[in-house]
Order: sequence, then structure tokens, then C-alpha cells
Amino acid sequence: MNIVKPRTLSGFMELLPGKQAQFERMLEILRKTYASYGFAALDTPVIEDAQILLAKGGGETEKQIYRFQKGDSDLALRYDLTVPLAKYVALHCNDLAFPFRRFQISKVYRGERAQRGRFREFYQADIDIIGDGKLDILNEAEIPAVIYKVFTGFGLRRFQIRVNNRKILSGFYDMLELGEKSGDIMRTVDKLDKIGAEKVAALLVEECGISQEQAEKIMAFIAIRGTNAQVLSALEGYMGRSELFDQGVQELRAVTANLSAFGVPEANFAVDLTIARGLDYYTGTVYETMLLDHPEIGSVCSGGRYDNLAGFYIEKQLPGVGISIGLTRLFYVLDEQGLLNPQLPSAPADALVLPMTQETALAIRLAETLRSSGLRVQLYGEQKKFKQKMAYADKLGVPFAVLLGEDEIAEGKCSVRNMRTGEQVKLTAQEAAEYIRSALAASNGPIILEK
Amino acid sequence: MNIVKPRTLSGFMELLPGKQAQFERMLEILRKTYASYGFAALDTPVIEDAQILLAKGGGETEKQIYRFQKGDSDLALRYDLTVPLAKYVALHCNDLAFPFRRFQISKVYRGERAQRGRFREFYQADIDIIGDGKLDILNEAEIPAVIYKVFTGFGLRRFQIRVNNRKILSGFYDMLELGEKSGDIMRTVDKLDKIGAEKVAALLVEECGISQEQAEKIMAFIAIRGTNAQVLSALEGYMGRSELFDQGVQELRAVTANLSAFGVPEANFAVDLTIARGLDYYTGTVYETMLLDHPEIGSVCSGGRYDNLAGFYIEKQLPGVGISIGLTRLFYVLDEQGLLNPQLPSAPADALVLPMTQETALAIRLAETLRSSGLRVQLYGEQKKFKQKMAYADKLGVPFAVLLGEDEIAEGKCSVRNMRTGEQVKLTAQEAAEYIRSALAASNGPIILEK
Repeated sequence: MNIVKPRTLSGFMELLPGKQAQFERMLEILRKTYASYGFAALDTPVIEDAQILLAKGGGETEKQIYRFQKGDSDLALRYDLTVPLAKYVALHCNDLAFPFRRFQISKVYRGERAQRGRFREFYQADIDIIGDGKLDILNEAEIPAVIYKVFTGFGLRRFQIRVNNRKILSGFYDMLELGEKSGDIMRTVDKLDKIGAEKVAALLVEECGISQEQAEKIMAFIAIRGTNAQVLSALEGYMGRSELFDQGVQELRAVTANLSAFGVPEANFAVDLTIARGLDYYTGTVYETMLLDHPEIGSVCSGGRYDNLAGFYIEKQLPGVGISIGLTRLFYVLDEQGLLNPQLPSAPADALVLPMTQETALAIRLAETLRSSGLRVQLYGEQKKFKQKMAYADKLGVPFAVLLGEDEIAEGKCSVRNMRTGEQVKLTAQEAAEYIRSALAASNGPIILEK
Repeated sequence: MNIVKPRTLSGFMELLPGKQAQFERMLEILRKTYASYGFAALDTPVIEDAQILLAKGGGETEKQIYRFQKGDSDLALRYDLTVPLAKYVALHCNDLAFPFRRFQISKVYRGERAQRGRFREFYQADIDIIGDGKLDILNEAEIPAVIYKVFTGFGLRRFQIRVNNRKILSGFYDMLELGEKSGDIMRTVDKLDKIGAEKVAALLVEECGISQEQAEKIMAFIAIRGTNAQVLSALEGYMGRSELFDQGVQELRAVTANLSAFGVPEANFAVDLTIARGLDYYTGTVYETMLLDHPEIGSVCSGGRYDNLAGFYIEKQLPGVGISIGLTRLFYVLDEQGLLNPQLPSAPADALVLPMTQETALAIRLAETLRSSGLRVQLYGEQKKFKQKMAYADKLGVPFAVLLGEDEIAEGKCSVRNMRTGEQVKLTAQEAAEYIRSALAASNGPIILEK
């Protein structure tokens, strides 16, 4: 037989079973938390008609897209979950109740240049709320409140959701009579974290073509710092000169107040006037999320309010607000930083049943009894020596081995061995189930363990 | 703005939220059941190197594959989960404990001619157990036992897992000195359900080129019917003439005996000598699963024992046994036949909180209290009239609306309205949570409800 050397494409994450178990835990928390806020699960195709997927067109993304022909069809793989959502809502809008709230946790595809920590296939975990014509500001506080629940559910504490409002920025640039340049300016200001204030100030003058004085006013504005109350109070000084600005401040106040009602502590949530999000798409509240001990990663969860989700597909005005977690990259970084809790069992089973005799039927029944109490149980059927059976249990990393030998069968019991301590006790099947369940419950903990 | 008419490609399933909720329930049962038998979750890339994916080569499948260039890379989308498993095991074999048990529930891609009920993108839900050099027969009973748990977990009762052993068939053809033609013969016999006994007998003579007498012997053999004990007993009459045949009968006996120990009733499990599975790949036990009221669909879950999983990638001998549920097609059929339980709530939330005043913070806290008791809760933030709010609750299909008006706020309570009966009671937030939880628990039922 001709042997082809197996490999996985670079830029594609493929985890070993233990790591995959940790990733699956994160998926489960995401699904549960998103569902607890009444978001409907959605699943759209990976492949879409290229004309439809690229209706919006646009720059960098288009170059990265996997696009190909099949027969006469011009096809492409989705590069995010927002465009497929827009298509979905436009296509099915008569069947949906608005505001339409959906979550989708799916893989997306971007043929980027491969580099460490960058993926060509990666999971996004998105939530969006889409209104029909209008959408209340309350939703703009709920979105980051859900993210707070997800991140604390993971076990993270040292993170901060940063919030701003594009209307404040646009209104401010209107005051400086820089409205037309506001897009360029915001994209430049967005680089603050990466290149520092001095270089941003220089770029504003050189590349955006604004005056030194205007640049200074912008730098003073984005330098506003402090508690949320302090920042909101500082913004008051600018009010009364732009309707858009004033509206933005009111929205930001409402979002801040509501986030407190949702139980999000100020430590995890900050008004930050430097947040702009590059995309023109956003029109109101915008979000970024930083891991405070790893600012070098940039935002791990971003989004915002938009006014027109599906304008490329439908005349209907569909405003919305959404946020997206780049899950594959987040998992990669947490793992790299050693933040995945090593105490959590990552074996595929809670217990491994090891038959020591030919009485297979008894071993099967024992395994079934343990399973019916909710345990994940592997039955080892191979005819191997005791030592090899224990070596398998060790390599699997299973917390408990359950031995069924002649003595145990005679007594109507089984021997439960704690694989970490070596401790071994003889119990009935029901007792064994209870024993293992309580031991496992005690070893429960967060997925992420910050140092 | 240029409007592009939105559409979803034909052959791609895209469900409305209510249907998706039912599909998600099936996914959850699959994940839980597979995990309870100690299978590790796995997730491999959708895109693979085409040379690797097609190492095995081969006929029909190859024509259907989505294959394309990106830069210099020759890429393809996976068309099943077995080839990626073979690659994975070959690539990571030093890091895996054998027998390696994995499940994968993922989308696969086949560019078939689109027709009703056929999908180009569809979920497969696979389990496999891979041995290193050897693998005990016990595993060949466990695989259908897991499928029995999954199907009964869905609520299905009228299904039958049909089991045979390729060694019995090969041994039988050896006895007739038709060993070399056994592949052709098995593929012909496989058509029995579709074309009937007479045509199979004719094809055996015309296309496989065997004698009338030989064909009669084959037809007599595959006509063996009865209870499992009767079929096994009838097979005894053929024993002693082919070692391979005898080994197959012994294996089939062991699988049958062990399936009883796993608690699988005979009604859901039958020895069936006509099952062959077209693929040469299988070498021992083979499985097909029929919905008894819908034989026209064919097998909804098939698999078997193979001797060499990854021979195209590695010298190591990796025998295994696996089975695959074609989930998208199964769901489509169950839905078409009206078998999805309409009593199960398919709304994205258990309760919808409707604030009737401007006191948003109180409504937020009420919603959070309900959520913390495990309920899925939507908070309706739109400034609409009462009638419109109730119309939204109706369209969403939410079982309970929770109203918070001035009276309720004054009393420190909320009004819980059962949307089906119209019944409404005033309760504290904690009482409301308990009330809704017990009502929902009572309406629990199977996903599938057979008529």
C-alpha cells in the first residue's frame, strides 16, 4: 500500500482528547449561558453562494476568503457569522419574532497568512439582537452582561469589557468640524494601544491632515480617564454643542446604569473613549474585552450596535447589537499562558471498568449500573494482563478504576481504586456509583485558573 | 444600495429557530450518551489536504468531493468522519491510549445531485473504537448498545438494529467456491430490500456469472429467518466446512449474547444474514438500523468492524469498529413524518419578562433572579403597547410571560401568565421561578413521539 504521510493543515486547530475535553467545557458554558438569556441557537451552512456572501464586498476580508467553483456554482466559505445572520434574517424575516435574538457558535474560515496563534479555521461564538425598525437601548447593556456571565463562568476574573459610543466620537468630531474625516481619525485613534499617544498625534496631523490644535483637542479628549462616573462627568463639559454627541452620552449613561442592574461589577466594565472599532458598520455602543494580564493579545470579544444589518439583501431597516468571541484564539492563548485548570479531569471517562475474569456479562451490567447513575464509564474488554490494564487506566488519566475479579463477584461487589491516591475499597455497584460521584463533585472547579 | 436576493444553497439545511431547538436537543442527547460510554469528543478540521483526504482514492465519493485550490494548496472538504479519524489516529498515535474511543458529531460535505431529502452538507454522528493490533469482540456488542441508548433517548421505539458478520458471508461463499466473486455477490445481495429476491437471483446469474444452483444456495441461505436463536441455530448446520465461517458464527454468538447483557431487547436487535454493507472495508460484524415504520428510508445508522483503519497513512495495524448516524437526513425524515413531539416547547426562552413601567432596573433584577434558578429568560426591552408585547410573546411561543407593572412593583411581586391557558398568578420572583420550573418539568417528554 502507498503510504501518504498524514498531517493537519497549518492554521487549523486539532486538539488531543484531553485539550478537546477542556474546549468542550467552554462550548457547553457558552451554549448554556447564551440560552439562559433567551437567545435561540442557530446553525447556518458553512458554504454560501459567493455572490451573496460577498454582496457587501470589501477589502482585506475578500482576499482571505475561500472561494471556489463546483459545477456552475460560485461558492465561498463563511468568514464570519454576521453576514450569514444578515442573509438568514432577510430570508426568513416573516417567520421570525422581532426583536430576534440568536446565538451561533460555529467555525469560520479566513485564508490568512499562517502565523503563531492565528487560525484559518476558527470558532466564533456570537450573540445578536435584531430589531424590526427600532431596538431599545436596554439591549446594549444586556449584550456585555451576557459576556460577563460567560467569562466568569469560564473562571476568568481579570478581564474588562470596555464600552464606548460611536455617537460620542462622531459628535465630538462634528464639534471640531472634522465630521468628514471622522472615519480616518477613529481608525488612527484605534491604534493607541499599539503605537502610543505620541505616534497617534503625529499620524493625525500627517495622515488625516488635521491641524496641530485639532489633534491636541482629540488627544485631550481620548485622555479622559477615571471611574465610569468620572468619565461620564467629564463628558458633561462637552455637552450642548452637538445633538449626536449628547445622544451618545445619554446612551452611554443608560448602558452604564443598566450594566450595574445586571450585576456587572465596575472592575469588569469600563467606559473607555479610545474604543472606536474600525468598522464603519457600528453606529452606537461599541465593545472590546481585554484580559487585564494579557493586554498584548488585544480584544478577545468585540462588537457593537449597528443600524442596518441586512441592507444588502432587503429594504427593511434592521438595527441590531451583537458581540463575538474569537473562541479558538482565546482558547489557544489561555492554554499557552497555562491558565487552563490542570485539576479538572480531562479523561473521557469518570471510571474504567476492568473485568478480571471471563464473566463479561457481569462486567457489562456493572458498567451499565454506574452509567445509569450519570457517570461516564468505559468498559475495558481487551484480554490483557493486570499490569497492562492498569497501564491503560494510567495513560487514559481516568480518576477511578473499578475492578471486577473472582473475589468481588463472589461477594457481589466491585473494587473501586482511586487512581491518584491508590486507595482501594470494595463496594456494591450502587455504593460505587455514589462513592465516585461524590469524589468527582469535590474535585470540581473552574475551567480557567488565574495565577 | 444594490440589493442581492438572499437565498440558501439547495441541499443545505437551514432551520427556523423552533426546529433548530429540536435539532439541538438531539445533539445534546447524542453528546451525553456517547460521553456516558467513555468516548472522547473530537473535532477535526473541515478542510484537509486533498492528497491526504483522497489517499484511499475511490469511485463515486471522489466525484462528489468539494476540492479547490487556495494559493498553492490543493484542498478538500471532508466527505465523512472516518478518513479524518484515520489521519488523526495515524498522526497522533503516540499520544493516544488504545483502545482509542472517540465520538465526533460534525458536518461533512458531498456535492451530490440535489434532490429531496438528500443533503450536500450534513451532520454525521460517529463513534469508533480503535485497537492497537488487536481489538476484543466485546466492543462489537457495545457499539450497537450505545446506538440503542441514543435512539431510545430520542424517544424512538420502533427501530431495529440489524447485525451480521462478513466472515459468515465470506466463509459461506468460500464453501461454494465463490470466494473471488464474494464482493460482487454481496453488493448484489445488498439490493434485496430494494429490488426483491427474484431480481437478486437473476442478477447473481447474469451479472456475477455464477450457476443457477449456486444462486439457489445463496438465496436459501439469505432466506434464513426467525428469532436470533433460530437464525444462530440454522447457521450451525453450515459449520465445520470453513474456518472463516465458523469464526464468524462464534463472533455473532458473542455479540448477540453481550447485547442482551447490555439490556438491548430482541425487538430492537435482529441477526439478519442479508446485511452485507457494500464497502470492502468491513471484515467482521456489520450493522444497519431500520425505522420499522419507514423501511423506505433505508438504514439510518450503519457501520461495522474493520481491520485496518489507517493503512494509507501508517504501517501500524489499527483494527476498529464504528458506526455512523446520518443525523441531518434522520432529522429531515422524522420531521417530514410528523414524528417530532409538538408538545415540547421550542421557544428560545422559558419565560419572557415584560416590564410595564420605566423601572428598567427592577425588570433586569427580576429576570436575573429567574435565570439564577436555571430558567432561560428573555427580557423584553422595547417601548411598545401592552397588546404588542403580548403579540410578541405569542409569536415567540414562550410558555410563560412575567409581567412587572406598578401594582406588582408596589407589592414586591410579579404576575406570571401561562400563555397556553391564560391563567395568571401574582408571586414573588423566587416563587415565580419555582412555579415555572415545576410547570415545565411536567411538560417534559421525548423528542420523538411515534404514532
